This record gives sequence, C-alpha cells and structure tokens, in this order.
Amino acid sequence: MSKSRLDRLNSLLRKSKLDGAVLNPGPTLTYLTGVRFHLMERPVVLLVARDRSPALVLPELEMAKVGQIPYEVLPFPYPEDPLAWDAAYVRAVQALGLDGKQIGLEPRSMRLLEFRYVKAAAPEAGFPDASEALGELRLRKDSHEIEAMRKAVQIAQEALTALLPQVKVGMTERDLAGELVVQLLRHGSDSEMPLTPIVSAGPNSANPHASPTERKIQRGDFMLFDWGATFGGYISDLTRTYAIGEIEPELKKIHSVVQEANAAGCAAARPGSPCSAVDAAARAVIEKAGYGRFFTHRTGHGIGMEVHEDPYMRSDNAQILEPGMAFTVEPGIYLPDRNGVRIEDNVVITESGVDVLSDMPRDLSVLG
Amino acid sequence: MSKSRLDRLNSLLRKSKLDGAVLNPGPTLTYLTGVRFHLMERPVVLLVARDRSPALVLPELEMAKVGQIPYEVLPFPYPEDPLAWDAAYVRAVQALGLDGKQIGLEPRSMRLLEFRYVKAAAPEAGFPDASEALGELRLRKDSHEIEAMRKAVQIAQEALTALLPQVKVGMTERDLAGELVVQLLRHGSDSEMPLTPIVSAGPNSANPHASPTERKIQRGDFMLFDWGATFGGYISDLTRTYAIGEIEPELKKIHSVVQEANAAGCAAARPGSPCSAVDAAARAVIEKAGYGRFFTHRTGHGIGMEVHEDPYMRSDNAQILEPGMAFTVEPGIYLPDRNGVRIEDNVVITESGVDVLSDMPRDLSVLG
Repeated sequence: MSKSRLDRLNSLLRKSKLDGAVLNPGPTLTYLTGVRFHLMERPVVLLVARDRSPALVLPELEMAKVGQIPYEVLPFPYPEDPLAWDAAYVRAVQALGLDGKQIGLEPRSMRLLEFRYVKAAAPEAGFPDASEALGELRLRKDSHEIEAMRKAVQIAQEALTALLPQVKVGMTERDLAGELVVQLLRHGSDSEMPLTPIVSAGPNSANPHASPTERKIQRGDFMLFDWGATFGGYISDLTRTYAIGEIEPELKKIHSVVQEANAAGCAAARPGSPCSAVDAAARAVIEKAGYGRFFTHRTGHGIGMEVHEDPYMRSDNAQILEPGMAFTVEPGIYLPDRNGVRIEDNVVITESGVDVLSDMPRDLSVLG
Repeated sequence: MSKSRLDRLNSLLRKSKLDGAVLNPGPTLTYLTGVRFHLMERPVVLLVARDRSPALVLPELEMAKVGQIPYEVLPFPYPEDPLAWDAAYVRAVQALGLDGKQIGLEPRSMRLLEFRYVKAAAPEAGFPDASEALGELRLRKDSHEIEAMRKAVQIAQEALTALLPQVKVGMTERDLAGELVVQLLRHGSDSEMPLTPIVSAGPNSANPHASPTERKIQRGDFMLFDWGATFGGYISDLTRTYAIGEIEPELKKIHSVVQEANAAGCAAARPGSPCSAVDAAARAVIEKAGYGRFFTHRTGHGIGMEVHEDPYMRSDNAQILEPGMAFTVEPGIYLPDRNGVRIEDNVVITESGVDVLSDMPRDLSVLG
C-alpha cells in the first residue's frame, strides 16, 4: 500500500470528468487507505478532491487510524454528540472546495446515513454513480493481491478436505457449517469470512442461496458446500457437491453436466474475450443437456476484497477480460424440491490465458 | 414470528404520520419477515403501505423465500439483467399506490443502491428518516428475544473461559483472536459473529477500536478481550481486561476504577431513568478518580439483532429506559501509548430494575 493507489484514483476521476469522490467504510476505502473503518451508526467518509490531500470525517475515538494512512489526509474529527457531526462535514467539504462539484460515489456501498451528511454540507454538488471508475481501481489484481487470493483458496480447500471425512448421515447442515468455519480458522483464515458457508443437502441444495438448516442429511442427498476463506483481506469462494450414499441416476447425470459446464466456462476465460463468453460457454453445455431452465443464475462474479464485485460473468456483459481480473466460474442445475448441484472455481486472467486457483477434485464422490 | 410484528409496524407508521416504509436487507427486514435477505449487488426491498399486504422486490432466484414469510406479501421478482430492475420497482410502487406518499426509511441501513431504484419509481414521494419509528419496533425485547441474548452471553463466557488457560506470553493478538472465534463456534455461536473479536494488549489496548495485530503479548501488558456470540440471530457483546504478569500500580488502579464505574452504570439502569443517567453514573466514578479525559466514548449502546442499536447510553440522551430494553454498560480508561482497560456487561431492563445477563468475574486476574 502506498500513495500510488490515490494517484490512480486521481487519474480515474480525471478520465471520468469527476471533481472528486466520497467513500464510506467498505472495501474501496480500505483499498485506498490501507486502513479498515467500521460501518456503524457513526458516519465516516473520505472526501477526495482531485489532486489534493483527501479529507477524512470520523469520530474522535478513531483518530489513531489517521496516522496509519501512508499519505497526508486532513482529519475532521467529531465528538460523540450527533448534533456536532454536521459541522465536521461542512468543514471538510469547505476545506476541499467540493460544494457545487461533481462528486462520484458507489451506490452499492454508500448509505443514506453518510450521504445525507455530505449532501447537506454540499447542497449544490452532484453525486453521480462512479461505481465503474471506482470499481476500475480494484479491477486488475496485482501479484500481491493474487498471492493473497491463492492462499485464501488453499486455506478453503484444506478446511473442506479436513471436514469431509467427518460427514455422516444424520448430521445437520448447521453442524457441518459450524465445523467448516472451525476448520477454516484452524487452517489460517482471517476471522472475517467472505460468506457464511452454505451447507445444503437434499431439497435445500435446490435453493442456490440456502442457509444451513437443522435438517439431517440422508442417503440419496446431494450435499453441497459453498464456502470460502479470507487471507490478508482477500477472499476465496468455492463450491463442491457430493453424493450421500447411492443417488438416483438423473442426479449423477446433472453432476456430470455441471462439471463439464464448469470446465467449459474456465476454458473460455482468456484475455480479450468478453465476460459474456464465459457465461455462454458454461450455459451452452447445460442447455444442450436439456437443463437450461434449471440454471437460474449467472455463471460467475468478480472476487477480491469482496465476495461479489466486478466483473460479472453474465450473458449481457460485453466487458473485455484483462490480465489480473479475478472471478468465479460456478454453473449449477437446480431441480426444484429435489436436489441441486453447483461446482465453483476461482480463476485469474493471465497474459496468455487463465490461472485456475482452485484444484480440489470436482468428480462426484460419495460421502457418509 | 407472526403477523403481529407487521401490525405493530402499521401502528407505528400511523403514529408517525407515515404512509409507508421501505426496508432493505438488514435486521429490521429480518425482524419483520422472519427471513434473511443478502445485502448484495442485487437490490432487495420490502415496501410497506399502511394496512395493506407489503410488496417485495427481489431477484427471481430468491423467490423461494417469499413463501417463508408468515403473512401475504406481493412478490415483484426481477431477472438477472439489471436493465429489467427498474420496471419491477415501478410495478411494486404502483401496486401499493405509494408515489407521492411519505415513505419512511432507515438511513443507517438503506443504501443509495436500493434508494435510487425506489426514488425513480416514486419520484413524488418523500423519504423521511423513520429510524425512530422503525427502531421502536425492535426496542423492547420479548422474552423469547431475551432468552436468545442470555444464551449468546453464556456461549461467549464459556468460550473465553476455555481460552484463558491457553494465554501465554509471546502469543500474538491475532493467534488469540482466531482461537477465540474457534471457541465461540465450538460453544454454539451462530457462524455470523456480532463482531470480529478485539484482542489487544499493551499499547494497542489503549485504542478502543483496535484490530488484532501480530504484536506478541508481554509481561506488564493489559490484555483486553472485546468479544461476543450470536444465538438465534441475537448477539452478546462483552469486554474483560486481564493483566499479563506483574503490571504497574497505576494500571491496577485504573482497572479498579473502571470496575467500580461498570458497577455504578449497571446499578443506575432501571425503568423510568433516562439513558443519560447510566452514562452519568459510570462517568462520575472515572471523573472523580481524575481519569475523565481518558474515558473517550459513551457508556453503552443497545444490543439485540445488531451489535449497535437503540438505546444509546450517552450523556445527552434523555430517552427513558423501559422494561425489555437491552444494552451494554462498558466504561473504559485509555492511557495513550500505554495501556487501556474496559469492562463491558450486557443488561436488560426489567419491570423493577435490571437483569445483568453476564456474570464472568470482573476482578483483575493475572494470565500467562
């Protein structure tokens, strides 16, 4: 982390014809400052005006963090009393001369809590959606970031590998999810996980966003794990699906179709191709097998500091893949009220192709 | 969970002269529907119009959750393509006739992502801050909620009790934080923790919001744990401070002052008193001892589904305490660049006084 990230933000703002940006606590703020702020009831924002030292509005009790930022930041601390917060925002906006200017923001991160303070302090400013410019900042991972993600994948794989021998008929999804988190931590994950593991079996596996329940796993179930680790602030996000005992022939078939779709999606990931090509390659396999309408989501999403970020592998996304872009490839087939299967890997685009970070076996194996 | 929570929301809206409310994924939405939605790049909102069935705008792939809500909800699902999202919002606003109306929201939860879709669909509506009315909904915990919090406290206490014998000079804060999370899970915490444990020793303990570092703990340090568990969606949030070996006399003194301040704060918590009285009681002890300027934060915050919620124990908060209100009492003294101490308990106001949920020993004991 150094001032170079702020310099890159300044170029991106110039390119987007923005005068500045406002960031609340979240990955972009952490990326830019190297420091983590809490998303809480006390509003914190970094105000950036092009080619000047940024201003940070924050609670007095967080002042120690200002010194950890590797470039000059003008602090505007406020006391506990909320009536004093407005004034700190006004002083910060005035110090940077931002009223009346175009101040970009990320609608996905910015809450009305912070926004209303900034807007009151800069009533004549415009606040365009700068998700693209700000997303661009983190879009191509450097080698340090890729190594952190590779380590996060490795930790996740080791954790599930340690858990699998413990899976037995009669255990609940919740038991397994708790034990998987224990294994993730034991194998070195940061304690802030990218996601609460999805551990879903039988009919629950047919819900792509299931939460672990008290249902006991049974013979004949698919057993799906969607889990990940965090290392140095970077995440992994994987899925594998197993059989509990003997399963019906159609389930074996859809597992094999999804495995083929996953391989096709990974193979289509290369520099110069659009994101839509990755989705198309995976989806074609599933459609050809006659299960197109049971693949109800996009093929993948970007990963990095966040578990969902740019770029998205959607059929309508013409964005061109470039070296350093990192994302998931995760086709699935979900037979409602029966069973579902998903196989998810993490990949990074290289100069010449793709680096698949995850290598845990994808073949159908039987647990329990 | 039943329709009664929606009925209570309707009364609160009537009392606040609001025509409706809009909620994005977060604790209030979970409280009201009994279902958890992800806060993600796909916007999800529940639109409530007084005395009608609410509308839920959500991705198609989350439709299975609609059936889990214990009252009628009109679903407005949208496909993966973001260009189709606007239309789903317009249909939902029209179905409830909400344009031009006063629609309350929580600025602390609502992101510009969801807000801009709602605003575009209801350009003539007003969106007042309804934090108070919506906070009121969850302000007095029922017996079921209190039992969940009691269990969350118990899990947290058992977890730290299991960890303490392992604390040794030379371990890092990060080692201990990871191991504490393992213990929390082993003792039954839900996997979504209320906070990443703060494990801070020596000079780091003088920062109330420290993150665990690679610093090794040393003799003479204060060792502070600020940690909690989640049970059934309800949280605990505790702090205890220990000595590593022999510590300087002033540190012993401030620990004893904070312990007395904690007891005074708990004793001042009773129905009919203002929140400010809890802060005043704890602060008076610390001021009298001459450390007032080193107690840099409020005395406590409400807890429940969130780790920070109403009511806040601040010197300027005249809100009257009522049975069922749950909050922390957590005075501290932080000597910059030296050491800090905080002792935090979780309490619930009863008909006649206060129920202190946490009972782990507060006396200074020596570890390592």
